[in-house]
Amino acid sequence: MNASPSGALAEYFERCQDRIDDALERLLRRAAAEDRLAAALAYAGLAKGKRLRPILVFASAQAVGANPDATLNAACAVELIHTYSLIHDDLPAMDDDDLRRGKPSLHKAFDDATAILAGDAMQALAFEVLSQPQEQLPASTQLQMIRTLAHAAGPEGMVAGQSMDCAASGQSLAENELEGTPQQLATAQQRLEDMHQHKTGALISASVKLGALCAKDVSAERLAALESFASHIGLAFQVRDDILDVEGDPAALGKPLGSDDRSDKITYVSLLGLGAARTRAVELADAARASLQPFSSAADNLREIASYIVAREH
Amino acid sequence: MNASPSGALAEYFERCQDRIDDALERLLRRAAAEDRLAAALAYAGLAKGKRLRPILVFASAQAVGANPDATLNAACAVELIHTYSLIHDDLPAMDDDDLRRGKPSLHKAFDDATAILAGDAMQALAFEVLSQPQEQLPASTQLQMIRTLAHAAGPEGMVAGQSMDCAASGQSLAENELEGTPQQLATAQQRLEDMHQHKTGALISASVKLGALCAKDVSAERLAALESFASHIGLAFQVRDDILDVEGDPAALGKPLGSDDRSDKITYVSLLGLGAARTRAVELADAARASLQPFSSAADNLREIASYIVAREH
Repeated sequence: MNASPSGALAEYFERCQDRIDDALERLLRRAAAEDRLAAALAYAGLAKGKRLRPILVFASAQAVGANPDATLNAACAVELIHTYSLIHDDLPAMDDDDLRRGKPSLHKAFDDATAILAGDAMQALAFEVLSQPQEQLPASTQLQMIRTLAHAAGPEGMVAGQSMDCAASGQSLAENELEGTPQQLATAQQRLEDMHQHKTGALISASVKLGALCAKDVSAERLAALESFASHIGLAFQVRDDILDVEGDPAALGKPLGSDDRSDKITYVSLLGLGAARTRAVELADAARASLQPFSSAADNLREIASYIVAREH
Repeated sequence: MNASPSGALAEYFERCQDRIDDALERLLRRAAAEDRLAAALAYAGLAKGKRLRPILVFASAQAVGANPDATLNAACAVELIHTYSLIHDDLPAMDDDDLRRGKPSLHKAFDDATAILAGDAMQALAFEVLSQPQEQLPASTQLQMIRTLAHAAGPEGMVAGQSMDCAASGQSLAENELEGTPQQLATAQQRLEDMHQHKTGALISASVKLGALCAKDVSAERLAALESFASHIGLAFQVRDDILDVEGDPAALGKPLGSDDRSDKITYVSLLGLGAARTRAVELADAARASLQPFSSAADNLREIASYIVAREH
């Protein structure tokens, strides 16, 4: 497994990142009718990110043999939703994080009001992009994409996950709970996975699904395989995040370690211990790759991404 | 003109309000995967509002002879966008308003994090509703509706207007500016109208346009007439708001008077004086009605709404 993408995967990532960065640049530079808002959108939207969700759109579309030209708007839309969610999550009223992508978070660089508005604007922009007329896709497919993304982003998806996270903050496991029955620990783990499946899993699944919708007539079997892949890498991503918060390199992460511990959060590491968390991450990545059995080598980038997710250093 | 809608208009308003309230109730009661978020969505979304924007969707659809069954999702979507914008605008980081629709604003009844998340969820829900399969409308029309609403809500529309409003806060007219040249006053009025055209005008125009999109093949002339109607009532609404902030009935408004003055905002009243502001509101309503010349009596509810907007007491 690769600690950071190398070789062919690194090249693939770079090509995808360039493509999405160019598109976001075009989109965000002309997007706002007010100067401060425009500057905030560019500051947060053009900061270098991993662009994992757009890459998943591209790689999933590749797996089902879709026209690559059909994918760009969907890739921009998922990244805009992801970026808006980071902006709002970083606010003092929520996670109160001062650093993001290696630089001051938006509300620190600007102010809280601008950060709220920039996030709001990005969400609207995501749906505007996704509703642009696009000759490669039937309008009914575009509607399905919008429905998929809106559902994943909304009160039954990502926002519910962030709300569960807020509700759970400060509810770390009591000592006696850590020594609790296997049943109690299983319940705590179930709650944690439920939160992550909403908070990050829903948008990761939507990214994979949007990629698949770029092709015509994908079979139900293949769609189910991609759904299973997405739900496994979504959790794997989160387990790896929890591990990195304990043993990562602050310079690579662009933020200090131990933030989960300080905010008294239940994590995979606090729940399972570091060793078992590492094992769980690898199991999840293996299961994700196994889900791709119905696919040929066209899904190799998806397979590589699963390995990368649990080995990444940031 | 009616101080509050009476007679036929009052009945029409009530029918529209019942229809939208029922639909929002169904939508918001089942919308959230987390309890506190669900309660917040119901608290803010089901509070009694004027429902002016949904009513404009219905009345505009009626003017162009659309199937009324096609209008409900669009009406819900505009109200969800409007309500989310109120929730976020009320936050301490923005206008810091403690009262809304006669009860504590959402962040006072819950907390800031929940208010941010509930607003975010409502915006996503608006686009989810608008992308539901609907047999009365071609998918391409639904896409056009989504594009219209997203553009009106986003960084070139409503959010830009709120950002302009934040930027202008505390920049009341200096004494010497009030005694300035007609040119200086005209520039200040132009800036004020530009802000309102984005902050409230964009969504009001979108409401009228969404109503019109519910019918097939509306002529360019009729669409232009509706656009003109919408932009005039949007400004008229705002002028009346500024007047009510000075001389309204706090009980009817559900909030104290003088909030503009306390936050040192430029308003139509501070700019023009109370008498001229009243005249301007009536002129705008007259111009809005005049725009509807190409329409038969099918547009009578729109005509009545224009009159109501500048005579309303809340």
